[in-house]
Amino acid sequence: MIPNMYKMAGELLPGVIHVSARAIASHALSIFGDHSDIYACRQTGFAMLCSNNPQEVMDLGAVAHLASIKGRVPFLHFFDGFRTSHEIQKIETWDYSDLGELLDWDAVNAFRRRALNPEHPVQRGTAQNPDIFFQAREASNKYYEEIVGVVEDYMNQVNAKIGTKYKLFNYYGARDAEHVVVCMGSAADTAEETVDYLNAQGEKTGLVKVHLYRPFSVKHLVAALPKTVKKITVLDRTKEPGSLGEPLFLDVVAALRDTKFADVPVYSGRYGLGSKDTTPAHFIAVYRNMEAARPKKRFTVGIEDDVTNLSLKIKENPDTTPKGTTSCKFWGLGSDGTVGANKNSIKIIGDNTDMYAQGYFSYDSKKSGGVTISHLRFGKKKIKSTYLISKANFVACHNPSYVDKYDIVEDVVPGGIFLLNCSWDEAELDRRLPGVMKRYIAKNNIKFYTIDATHIAKELGLGGRVNTILQAAFFKLSKIIPVDRAVQLMKDAATKSYGKKGEKVVAMNHAAIERGVAGTHKVNVPKEWANAKDTQVADAVAGGRPEIKGYIDNVLAPINAQRGDKLPVSTFVDMADGTVPLGSSAYEKRGIAVDVPQWMPENCIQCNQCSLVCPHAAIRPILAAPEELEGAPESFVTVDAKGKGLEGLKFRIQPYVMDCQGCGSCANVCPAKEKALLMKPLETQQEAQVANLAFATEHVSLKDDVMDRGTLKGSQFQQPLLEFSGACAGCGETPYVKLLTQLFG
Amino acid sequence: MIPNMYKMAGELLPGVIHVSARAIASHALSIFGDHSDIYACRQTGFAMLCSNNPQEVMDLGAVAHLASIKGRVPFLHFFDGFRTSHEIQKIETWDYSDLGELLDWDAVNAFRRRALNPEHPVQRGTAQNPDIFFQAREASNKYYEEIVGVVEDYMNQVNAKIGTKYKLFNYYGARDAEHVVVCMGSAADTAEETVDYLNAQGEKTGLVKVHLYRPFSVKHLVAALPKTVKKITVLDRTKEPGSLGEPLFLDVVAALRDTKFADVPVYSGRYGLGSKDTTPAHFIAVYRNMEAARPKKRFTVGIEDDVTNLSLKIKENPDTTPKGTTSCKFWGLGSDGTVGANKNSIKIIGDNTDMYAQGYFSYDSKKSGGVTISHLRFGKKKIKSTYLISKANFVACHNPSYVDKYDIVEDVVPGGIFLLNCSWDEAELDRRLPGVMKRYIAKNNIKFYTIDATHIAKELGLGGRVNTILQAAFFKLSKIIPVDRAVQLMKDAATKSYGKKGEKVVAMNHAAIERGVAGTHKVNVPKEWANAKDTQVADAVAGGRPEIKGYIDNVLAPINAQRGDKLPVSTFVDMADGTVPLGSSAYEKRGIAVDVPQWMPENCIQCNQCSLVCPHAAIRPILAAPEELEGAPESFVTVDAKGKGLEGLKFRIQPYVMDCQGCGSCANVCPAKEKALLMKPLETQQEAQVANLAFATEHVSLKDDVMDRGTLKGSQFQQPLLEFSGACAGCGETPYVKLLTQLFG
Repeated sequence: MIPNMYKMAGELLPGVIHVSARAIASHALSIFGDHSDIYACRQTGFAMLCSNNPQEVMDLGAVAHLASIKGRVPFLHFFDGFRTSHEIQKIETWDYSDLGELLDWDAVNAFRRRALNPEHPVQRGTAQNPDIFFQAREASNKYYEEIVGVVEDYMNQVNAKIGTKYKLFNYYGARDAEHVVVCMGSAADTAEETVDYLNAQGEKTGLVKVHLYRPFSVKHLVAALPKTVKKITVLDRTKEPGSLGEPLFLDVVAALRDTKFADVPVYSGRYGLGSKDTTPAHFIAVYRNMEAARPKKRFTVGIEDDVTNLSLKIKENPDTTPKGTTSCKFWGLGSDGTVGANKNSIKIIGDNTDMYAQGYFSYDSKKSGGVTISHLRFGKKKIKSTYLISKANFVACHNPSYVDKYDIVEDVVPGGIFLLNCSWDEAELDRRLPGVMKRYIAKNNIKFYTIDATHIAKELGLGGRVNTILQAAFFKLSKIIPVDRAVQLMKDAATKSYGKKGEKVVAMNHAAIERGVAGTHKVNVPKEWANAKDTQVADAVAGGRPEIKGYIDNVLAPINAQRGDKLPVSTFVDMADGTVPLGSSAYEKRGIAVDVPQWMPENCIQCNQCSLVCPHAAIRPILAAPEELEGAPESFVTVDAKGKGLEGLKFRIQPYVMDCQGCGSCANVCPAKEKALLMKPLETQQEAQVANLAFATEHVSLKDDVMDRGTLKGSQFQQPLLEFSGACAGCGETPYVKLLTQLFG
Repeated sequence: MIPNMYKMAGELLPGVIHVSARAIASHALSIFGDHSDIYACRQTGFAMLCSNNPQEVMDLGAVAHLASIKGRVPFLHFFDGFRTSHEIQKIETWDYSDLGELLDWDAVNAFRRRALNPEHPVQRGTAQNPDIFFQAREASNKYYEEIVGVVEDYMNQVNAKIGTKYKLFNYYGARDAEHVVVCMGSAADTAEETVDYLNAQGEKTGLVKVHLYRPFSVKHLVAALPKTVKKITVLDRTKEPGSLGEPLFLDVVAALRDTKFADVPVYSGRYGLGSKDTTPAHFIAVYRNMEAARPKKRFTVGIEDDVTNLSLKIKENPDTTPKGTTSCKFWGLGSDGTVGANKNSIKIIGDNTDMYAQGYFSYDSKKSGGVTISHLRFGKKKIKSTYLISKANFVACHNPSYVDKYDIVEDVVPGGIFLLNCSWDEAELDRRLPGVMKRYIAKNNIKFYTIDATHIAKELGLGGRVNTILQAAFFKLSKIIPVDRAVQLMKDAATKSYGKKGEKVVAMNHAAIERGVAGTHKVNVPKEWANAKDTQVADAVAGGRPEIKGYIDNVLAPINAQRGDKLPVSTFVDMADGTVPLGSSAYEKRGIAVDVPQWMPENCIQCNQCSLVCPHAAIRPILAAPEELEGAPESFVTVDAKGKGLEGLKFRIQPYVMDCQGCGSCANVCPAKEKALLMKPLETQQEAQVANLAFATEHVSLKDDVMDRGTLKGSQFQQPLLEFSGACAGCGETPYVKLLTQLFG
């Protein structure tokens, strides 16, 4: 669309493109937020207006439309992708009558009169030659000169109307600040919070928030800066390889020439690429850099760059959220309803109290079945913490399998609450929880609760939907609002949501709320946990390619453990061009299913439809010669293979329980009179099946001759039969390929 | 393609995009040259290398390929659209073996090993999440750090090999220069010529030519600047509305911070948009601005901006071409062969002498039938004049109709040669030539020649191809090489070109060369011409819309007279959004046909096929009531209309001789036994037909009832018949529309 933008601006067509700013794919795709896309349009002639949070999107979105119509310059109104576009905040909204009052109706009518119309035709989009193009291009200068004043005027009108203080450049911080950051986007709110924190301790820090980025008004920037400023750092949320500095930095440097700030050093920082979380600790590092004897003039912040050494060291990481803010973090499984329940909690608290509420939801790319982490804040003061929560008053883990995989409890502040959804009693907790978790709980006086929401949900007929139960438990334990009131509000909401589905569904949800409140169990944390030893988790990986072990250990495993943020730049030097090895999914055994299939050999008719239907290739039929089965575990049961040409071979259905998503399709499709696959809890299966897989991987390897046994010709359904071969060395999920080959030749 | 460029750079894929840099359409399309397209890519991660003339395109094109392969950063190698891409220059060429010697074959092999290959598969183009995207993005920093050295190293190797002096930033001018221009692209050569001129007069000017624009190396820029510099002006060939300054300016400002040049004022100039010609006079103005007491810190140059007053005044316009350079300018008609003949002349002189040769060809957008102006320079010194010729030693006008339309002879330097292709004797010249041309010729001692190439071409059977005859005349008169040698070389070239077409064609061309040499006539310029009076040219316009007269007079007429360059910005303020009125072609009577159709009423069968076939709607049948013909000129002959329902009406075919292109299709298609249309010289027709048109326009206007007479039902061919209505008020060329309406309902 970029060429079109030149045309829209060139033809002075009013209009606003609202952009949730995101990264542009380079070495890899990132769907996440930064400013590289909007900076790619800075030369088009569009005016560019930045909003830093959802309230500003509402207010400055209006300014963009009003100014564009009056000034005939099209606007690109942008705000941070995800961090602003997907954040839930309690805001004041506008309606159209508010807009109508501020609108320049004469300009609207003039615009309409300029419409292309066969009754009074004109020509646009002509070609101009070297003789006149340049002069004609300069003829629009006045619109760009005037639009700055138009925007300022509309900001003033909005300020008068709703009590805001919008300016082209908003200054925040000490009137006599010496060190000032210039930035735009969601990080500006975090910067404000940091400035509040630092200045409360007697420091003199400040912040210039850029709202009107194009046209860039030198006069207004200079007016925004305090006279006392000694050093300036410009932060850009983009990377332009080969440039001297990122775009906002270049503008600020050029702007301050010939002003009283001409001799003030200006440093350039890059931050937040692809939604990299930017925290108060990072801003403190930026201010400390300005104080340093030998500051980095050009740096990155938010990562560890151990290669080009551009990154700032993070030495301070205080809790800067205002007192009275409650921070809550929820670990859920994509599609388990955790995110929906949290959105509902925000609505209940936001609509029924005078508290501010904020919600932000991190998903991994697996979506359904992946991790979802909900970050919720509630408080009496406006919430400016536009970063992820790492200091939580309340943390809930909605899936028991996460305790081994992620650092969950470490985010709870000392004395805070940790709620774990599991069926374990205290003895089993002692056996199941990793040492690091037990130590943290015991040493930091964490209030540890469990609830068996999965069991309750099944009892109530809710299937896997544990969200309402856990939401009720959250309201009970967090005490953000009195529990009775919360229960009532939750019930009202459920009645409203499910009323159309009948009384039974409503009653089921009301019961879930009550059971959630009643079902929490306070764990008596044993003193010995303070000295708990680390437990070795059995390696669930079977098969795979040894030559990519380095990539697995150094990249994939930390990412899967939600520790990717801590990986330094050096980790990626050998894959700087975005190249990654194949076969890595063999190493990513997720084990997220609650129930997994168990094979019943006595019922099996060997049709293999279970294998065909499994979307994750987690059901693999095995055909083996008896000598291949020597030394098999006792649980590695096989039966005689049925069918012509398969005489003397043994057959087995091997569920890959750690790959299984628990959908039950295999069991559903099974055509046998008595089902040959039954869904059973993973806990009851895991040990034996992992042992079975390990055996199969080592002893039943892919051999050329085995491929010839490919089709179970004697089967009554003439279904294709797969050879067991561990994970394919090529893609880690080869059964699909083999199936297709066999089906379609 | 811009998103793809981020990917190519992100994946470290070597490759070169050679870009003939052009304008991006804004208020209007411009197919011409400036840097707005390449600047739109400056943030993609591509390295960007600029060549300033065809020789550099050859040499630095090689550097771009070599460096990209070695350094794994893709290159955008750019040079000015048209001015460099379409300029003909005598250059040294490379062959592949030269490239092979410099190529890093290890890097080539490494590149090949990285190819996607199913035998050793890898994955590229993954998605990365916020945890690792930023770190991975920083992992490619070293490639950008290293590529600067790689380019420099290859430039040094090229310099050693072919004796050039390429640097990342090339300085040119006084070692102790105080005023330095920084720019890139074709204008840099003109700047060099200007620096030579100014410094020869004792001034201290300098020039930094940017070759490697991305990555932008501060170190190398600083090293290029003379220590004595007091003021710098950065010239950018683009316009980014809303920015503080254009891109190169922003880079230079940021680069000079923290260097010894930190306090040197830097001014910003915009020039050459959409191939606006940039001349030594403009560069002198830029240097004068740096000397001024109150310099313009941000300006435009090359136009007159009487609205925002950004433009520099042009006060000096000396001839800066080195002595011994012969400048020649040819005015031709698109498709008359002038451009081809000039290219041939350059080849003859370039290949057979030690002279440098340069050719540049300005076309108007009408292409065939439009004006072509060829700018040729020849000389013993390298030609750095990358601007149009306005001080010519030789000017040829290949079309006699141009004498009234364009300022042609004013470009001839005093004492220079003017050759006019026409059939006029001296008495007729006196009558035909406009006063301004006669005065200039007489006062400036112009050597004035005529040749009747059109007549000669017809005699020889060459039709309208006058080019070879005029080329021979050029060689005879200009004396750039001895005429005998030139004749021989031209004949050799003709033999080579036409050999395959047989002896007759070759002989025809040889004859044309001989007749061209022999056919020039030296005009005895009467002394009285020095005081010749201006003659009023009859307004050939008939019809049209009075309300657009302002647009016609102020915009269209100057553009058509090749005076568009002189229009100031204020001319375009009311059409700043690119809107232009319709109906203007009615005012653009070109009169370029040599022969035009004359209607022979006695032969006409009224089939109207002539009207149907005319691509320019220049043949219009008229159907009129007798009373409408009162007061018609004697030459406005009509006959009784044939056909049912047309009883009592009069019929006439009216050729629009000033719109006619002289193709003869009307005469060719005429099915009458004796042709009803005959092609006759415009001169013999013009007067009567213009009078006829004027009458028709005023007296036979479009009336509703006239439309009903639409179809000549009685015609033997059932062809549609058009009502005469002057030019359509809607589009100026309405007959097409009416035809279609009648044909297809």
